[in-house]
Amino acid sequence: METEILKAEVLIEAIPYIRRFAGSTVVVKYGGSAMVDEKLKRSVIQDIAMLKYIGLKPVVVHGGGKEITSLLERLGKQSQFLDGLRVTDEETAKVAEMVLSGSIGKALVDELQMVGISSVGISGKDGRSLLCSRKLDEKGRDLGFVGQIDHVDTTLLETLLANNFVPVVSPVGVDAAGNTYNINADYAASAVAGSLSAQKLIFLTDVEGILKDKDDPASILRTLSEQEALGYIADGTIKGGMIPKVQCCLDGLDKGVESVHVLDGRVPHAILLEIFTTKGVGTMVTKEKQA
Amino acid sequence: METEILKAEVLIEAIPYIRRFAGSTVVVKYGGSAMVDEKLKRSVIQDIAMLKYIGLKPVVVHGGGKEITSLLERLGKQSQFLDGLRVTDEETAKVAEMVLSGSIGKALVDELQMVGISSVGISGKDGRSLLCSRKLDEKGRDLGFVGQIDHVDTTLLETLLANNFVPVVSPVGVDAAGNTYNINADYAASAVAGSLSAQKLIFLTDVEGILKDKDDPASILRTLSEQEALGYIADGTIKGGMIPKVQCCLDGLDKGVESVHVLDGRVPHAILLEIFTTKGVGTMVTKEKQA
Amino acid sequence: METEILKAEVLIEAIPYIRRFAGSTVVVKYGGSAMVDEKLKRSVIQDIAMLKYIGLKPVVVHGGGKEITSLLERLGKQSQFLDGLRVTDEETAKVAEMVLSGSIGKALVDELQMVGISSVGISGKDGRSLLCSRKLDEKGRDLGFVGQIDHVDTTLLETLLANNFVPVVSPVGVDAAGNTYNINADYAASAVAGSLSAQKLIFLTDVEGILKDKDDPASILRTLSEQEALGYIADGTIKGGMIPKVQCCLDGLDKGVESVHVLDGRVPHAILLEIFTTKGVGTMVTKEKQA
Amino acid sequence: METEILKAEVLIEAIPYIRRFAGSTVVVKYGGSAMVDEKLKRSVIQDIAMLKYIGLKPVVVHGGGKEITSLLERLGKQSQFLDGLRVTDEETAKVAEMVLSGSIGKALVDELQMVGISSVGISGKDGRSLLCSRKLDEKGRDLGFVGQIDHVDTTLLETLLANNFVPVVSPVGVDAAGNTYNINADYAASAVAGSLSAQKLIFLTDVEGILKDKDDPASILRTLSEQEALGYIADGTIKGGMIPKVQCCLDGLDKGVESVHVLDGRVPHAILLEIFTTKGVGTMVTKEKQA
Amino acid sequence: METEILKAEVLIEAIPYIRRFAGSTVVVKYGGSAMVDEKLKRSVIQDIAMLKYIGLKPVVVHGGGKEITSLLERLGKQSQFLDGLRVTDEETAKVAEMVLSGSIGKALVDELQMVGISSVGISGKDGRSLLCSRKLDEKGRDLGFVGQIDHVDTTLLETLLANNFVPVVSPVGVDAAGNTYNINADYAASAVAGSLSAQKLIFLTDVEGILKDKDDPASILRTLSEQEALGYIADGTIKGGMIPKVQCCLDGLDKGVESVHVLDGRVPHAILLEIFTTKGVGTMVTKEKQA
Amino acid sequence: METEILKAEVLIEAIPYIRRFAGSTVVVKYGGSAMVDEKLKRSVIQDIAMLKYIGLKPVVVHGGGKEITSLLERLGKQSQFLDGLRVTDEETAKVAEMVLSGSIGKALVDELQMVGISSVGISGKDGRSLLCSRKLDEKGRDLGFVGQIDHVDTTLLETLLANNFVPVVSPVGVDAAGNTYNINADYAASAVAGSLSAQKLIFLTDVEGILKDKDDPASILRTLSEQEALGYIADGTIKGGMIPKVQCCLDGLDKGVESVHVLDGRVPHAILLEIFTTKGVGTMVTKEKQA
Repeated sequence: METEILKAEVLIEAIPYIRRFAGSTVVVKYGGSAMVDEKLKRSVIQDIAMLKYIGLKPVVVHGGGKEITSLLERLGKQSQFLDGLRVTDEETAKVAEMVLSGSIGKALVDELQMVGISSVGISGKDGRSLLCSRKLDEKGRDLGFVGQIDHVDTTLLETLLANNFVPVVSPVGVDAAGNTYNINADYAASAVAGSLSAQKLIFLTDVEGILKDKDDPASILRTLSEQEALGYIADGTIKGGMIPKVQCCLDGLDKGVESVHVLDGRVPHAILLEIFTTKGVGTMVTKEKQA
Repeated sequence: METEILKAEVLIEAIPYIRRFAGSTVVVKYGGSAMVDEKLKRSVIQDIAMLKYIGLKPVVVHGGGKEITSLLERLGKQSQFLDGLRVTDEETAKVAEMVLSGSIGKALVDELQMVGISSVGISGKDGRSLLCSRKLDEKGRDLGFVGQIDHVDTTLLETLLANNFVPVVSPVGVDAAGNTYNINADYAASAVAGSLSAQKLIFLTDVEGILKDKDDPASILRTLSEQEALGYIADGTIKGGMIPKVQCCLDGLDKGVESVHVLDGRVPHAILLEIFTTKGVGTMVTKEKQA
Repeated sequence: METEILKAEVLIEAIPYIRRFAGSTVVVKYGGSAMVDEKLKRSVIQDIAMLKYIGLKPVVVHGGGKEITSLLERLGKQSQFLDGLRVTDEETAKVAEMVLSGSIGKALVDELQMVGISSVGISGKDGRSLLCSRKLDEKGRDLGFVGQIDHVDTTLLETLLANNFVPVVSPVGVDAAGNTYNINADYAASAVAGSLSAQKLIFLTDVEGILKDKDDPASILRTLSEQEALGYIADGTIKGGMIPKVQCCLDGLDKGVESVHVLDGRVPHAILLEIFTTKGVGTMVTKEKQA
Repeated sequence: METEILKAEVLIEAIPYIRRFAGSTVVVKYGGSAMVDEKLKRSVIQDIAMLKYIGLKPVVVHGGGKEITSLLERLGKQSQFLDGLRVTDEETAKVAEMVLSGSIGKALVDELQMVGISSVGISGKDGRSLLCSRKLDEKGRDLGFVGQIDHVDTTLLETLLANNFVPVVSPVGVDAAGNTYNINADYAASAVAGSLSAQKLIFLTDVEGILKDKDDPASILRTLSEQEALGYIADGTIKGGMIPKVQCCLDGLDKGVESVHVLDGRVPHAILLEIFTTKGVGTMVTKEKQA
Repeated sequence: METEILKAEVLIEAIPYIRRFAGSTVVVKYGGSAMVDEKLKRSVIQDIAMLKYIGLKPVVVHGGGKEITSLLERLGKQSQFLDGLRVTDEETAKVAEMVLSGSIGKALVDELQMVGISSVGISGKDGRSLLCSRKLDEKGRDLGFVGQIDHVDTTLLETLLANNFVPVVSPVGVDAAGNTYNINADYAASAVAGSLSAQKLIFLTDVEGILKDKDDPASILRTLSEQEALGYIADGTIKGGMIPKVQCCLDGLDKGVESVHVLDGRVPHAILLEIFTTKGVGTMVTKEKQA
Repeated sequence: METEILKAEVLIEAIPYIRRFAGSTVVVKYGGSAMVDEKLKRSVIQDIAMLKYIGLKPVVVHGGGKEITSLLERLGKQSQFLDGLRVTDEETAKVAEMVLSGSIGKALVDELQMVGISSVGISGKDGRSLLCSRKLDEKGRDLGFVGQIDHVDTTLLETLLANNFVPVVSPVGVDAAGNTYNINADYAASAVAGSLSAQKLIFLTDVEGILKDKDDPASILRTLSEQEALGYIADGTIKGGMIPKVQCCLDGLDKGVESVHVLDGRVPHAILLEIFTTKGVGTMVTKEKQA
């Protein structure tokens, strides 16, 4: 009985958080190890289900780089590269779409339905939700059908949320002429969160969070304001692959998201821990410095 | 971190129960030790808050015998007794009403508001929710203003539930001529649960549950069907003060409640434990035998 | 038949008033003789019922000083006084609450239900409608649990009005820590009327209205603008006990009430007469001077 | 002041009736002297306004025989007669329509708007509300465009009622081929009342009510059950021109109207008197005998 | 089969127009030859039905000068003239009302119902939709009951549109004292279109459109901006009877109508052709010059 | 101008059909040549857009056999066959899903969006719309993940339809354990149409319709009742590959579809022609024999 009472107390501890976030929209960028390891996968699905059951409105945006590469290889498709970045020709974009919209997205829907959550897999083509144009690289070169999001039409997303479905969004876009675009999933998540004025945008990553010293997990920044982030980028504290991630965070804040979280997706139930306990599992980025 | 993950797992364990009972109306008869002991009181309030936060619709019906007796004594009011049952004259009924509607009910509302739950204290007079007539005792004698509920008007209760308030009901009734009646709280809870077609009716008591041998806690009946209950009453297994409690349970089932629970209110978080774990803390009475 | 036709003409005469006030919220501060004399009491209840039936939205705020004093006496409770003002300690506040919420309020509900009006008795604790803090006296001294209203949460009041219930409000408040406060009923009525943007706030008093010479009923002011009122207070025309009443009127106007009426509650059907006939029974106070 | 209080009491007396009939649909057949005498006309308009203001839903169906005859004469139109009944040829039907829909109906709308009631004048052509076919006389002869109502489409009437308009219905119908029909107004009122399941159908007539002896006003029947009515027709007590009126009453009852009233439209405020006082001004016909 | 496929292609061609105007309010001023010639009449009714079926919201405002004159003559009514303009005395206004509201309007309703469109004939008296005062002529002389519209109350029109009825409006108004006014139909249509913020206002006329040289149909102006119109009036290009028509167009634009169309009502299906094909059948007047 | 007027007349001719089918749900099984030939493809998209614009509710269920085969071949996947029927192992089912949900469905959505129709591509996994179990072949052999539909959950479909989206359904199902199933598209269309109680179910095929003699297009059956169909199957008139198609038709009728149409998808605008003209382009199957 003692154990049981302790369990009840855990539930009770969650009340202030449930109360605080009731009705909030939370966009989860799902990727990395958490998409590969079966146990972690299950824990993410459970976390999203929990968010839904206690009254939040989760939206999932997923990635899928590895599976796309694997199918391209099986199809014997040779990719062209520019400074190490793959050029996405029309066929590549269509193969990516098949994997994202036709395989990964639907599998996530399936997992959510298995735990009783009504869910719908959509891409930016559905309801023309993500209207894109070509995104040039930093040097202004055309990398093909890699999409820059010009407009998010939230009609479909809002219809689904209002009718109790959890949208699972594949990062595929379309332009006015009907061309198919591959979109970076972090960037898509940030755009979707901003257009929905989400309270939270969560990135599940394979790092502890944002680190001052990338080799020292202890150097993690628990909270980070916009100003601090810009400072760390300017002085080189934040560097390399972490920069685009931090920029997606700042991007989300600019579009109206209240807080952006870079979580360690390798920790089971990272999402619940971040939302329902005081003990964080990553970095929370906000516009203003938190007290 | 390990502890935290365990906590997350407790939350996850609750999912199937949250899913199953979402939207259910649960009537809690609140009385006994759980109304006196400060710690237990707090645990009941938290449990009710938790039910509300995760999407159930709790309704509280409270008792208050001791406080009424205490005020009557302070006022020097002598009570008349018939076979040990107090005769409720008009003044007694009005003193009881003051204590129930004006003190205990409002204090419960206050406690619920403190944990963020919108709550309203009503009695059977409000919206003429509990229309009564005089209830005679078993020998057909008039015990005064002790009410038998002839009709529950659920308009007010349903208005409050639909607008996200937790109703706290004082067991005070009224007749067509406007007279005030004192109502047995178990009986009021059963009538309210029946009229709302509640999924669950929970009695918080000072016993382990329904026992085959009242001196042996180990003889507790975890589940009890209507037929079994009638059998146990007929063969004398259930006897004494437990009989009216069991009859209130059967009454609730007859009026359409799905399951009635006699819980040990002395166990912290008894309500959550009964609803969200497989380990029960009392007896569940149902129409049909449970598999 | 002639008499009957005259009756019909009385009904017809009321049309322009019914038309003008349809849908208006009218807050009635109920107190004084009208709460004691049985015939007057009945006439007030009938007037409120009439308002409701013809499409207005009445809200009742009641007082109850005498009954509180009477119960305190019966309980042998000694009160402490500061310059003649009773210090409200915790027990006094709780006794007052029992009388207000548990006796007077519910009795009014009962009377309204008897004439077919659905009604609900609430206090400032319900839905935390009246959030208070300690009110100091003019000299800055603490008189105990006497509440100053910091916020009126109209959610519950509006839910009840929208669902056709007449709210009967007991002047009891609560602070963030859950403490119980006694509130001056005139002041509570003015706060409630202001927060609901009521068209009318009516004070039922034991005087003819606002008099220039308190000993001469003929000196009654039929209408009074804010500016005039301030002038009369400044030049000493309005003095003594009438000052706080006039200040409650001005307070109401400041919070957005259209007109505040100080009526002679000793005249039967004073409310109907004031609203439905050209012949007033008291003083109407408005922001601007009436033509 | 005394007079004023008496007035208030008249209002109060009306409460039980207001309560009883709130939300009821009342169809008033308006015709006879009450349509000619300016004072009576005003009293009918006021009565209908009063019904509307206190929450009933009045529908007016008007007649207009005299004005039609007068316009036909001015146009030099000769009518053909069969056993004294005018044959309604196409031109006659169209002249009647102009008078009914284009003059009398709109004038009534105008009067209602003058007392603040939103009103709309429609005929059976609008929304094809009254679908007709030719009505033969008792001998099976064709009297031309005299309509028998085959179907009442209540869509338009219900739209107007739901949006707070008082419909004023001209007794003009249409058949599937678009032909215009003149309809007997009593008959139209009965059909409209039945199709709306009106609580009351009121005929304003030029007689005291239904009399046992047509020359003796004292022989008036205050109440009349269906069975009694059939008996009186069978034994010749009710005869002549009163028979079709009584048959319209019985017709209304058959279609689901609760009570049908034959009132003396020459008495000012006959409608209010019948509905709001115990003293009737005509005959009430009901399915069952009234206690 | 070929013909059939061509037909399908005609339907398909209409898609972009259907898409563009879905949900738009279109006010059609119906008059001239199109109201006399049976074939044209049928084509107008079909066009309005088509607009309704594909999701637009048509409102019809009709004229009726000739039929009024004809009835006045039959009644031997002599009219007085001031500089050639008829003085509308009270009787004339009432005869006009009978013809407009009681004959022409209802006949149009009948025609629309015949093609399955729910329709209601109203005048400015219904719901006091068109509140008028006397309109003086250019010399400031009183021409009697000729109405200038002071206020359009759109409550009734919007209720009908929201409930899927096509309103057919007779140009009859009323003043605060209840007097009946005759209103110029072009002017009424413009006021109705403006108050409903209609997308389109269409005048069906007996000319090709707005011509630069009234004797040369080839001089038609296909589009006309407000500035151009004012220029043409100033330099005398537009003159005579065309000036008031153009002023009604400009009036409509000023009140918020998007485009005003002067169509040749002698061309079958002029409305559909103007809305659904690139080939116009008249002149479109807009605020700004069209590209 | 003449041509234009003829065009208007084509639109007008469509009115009775538009009127008759307004608000109807029409399920279109899209497959065969109409999915391959670019011109036909465009004509189908336009037809569906037209249905939507004039107020019907189209739902598309698409096939995709050839593209699945082509991708399986490119991936070097060897299929096993049983009596010529491919055994669908898990990998095959997943490849099929990628093609159906991730390529063909999204491409159709894209085409519909290009003509201004909001559209969403879903599969039976989304909202667990198509719950399946294994379908055995006629000999009771397991062909792998070929789904038999046990339940259609229409929640998602109805949400999309109610919010003005055109659902494009890929014939992919799921079982309670989360396995992916390939479903025959004709069969899926029939199940979807039945569960939505569609008015029409349209199969776009590569044949003229249902022929009595498969080699003689002139032997086409324009209408076919259930009884006739069963007779033709019994006497061998309908045979071979036409039998399952006819059975899907009968299946649809049994589930409540009003009429099922087997159209020649090789005729441009076959859908519009069938719905909006008297000249059919295939066979209409109904429960009862059509007059």
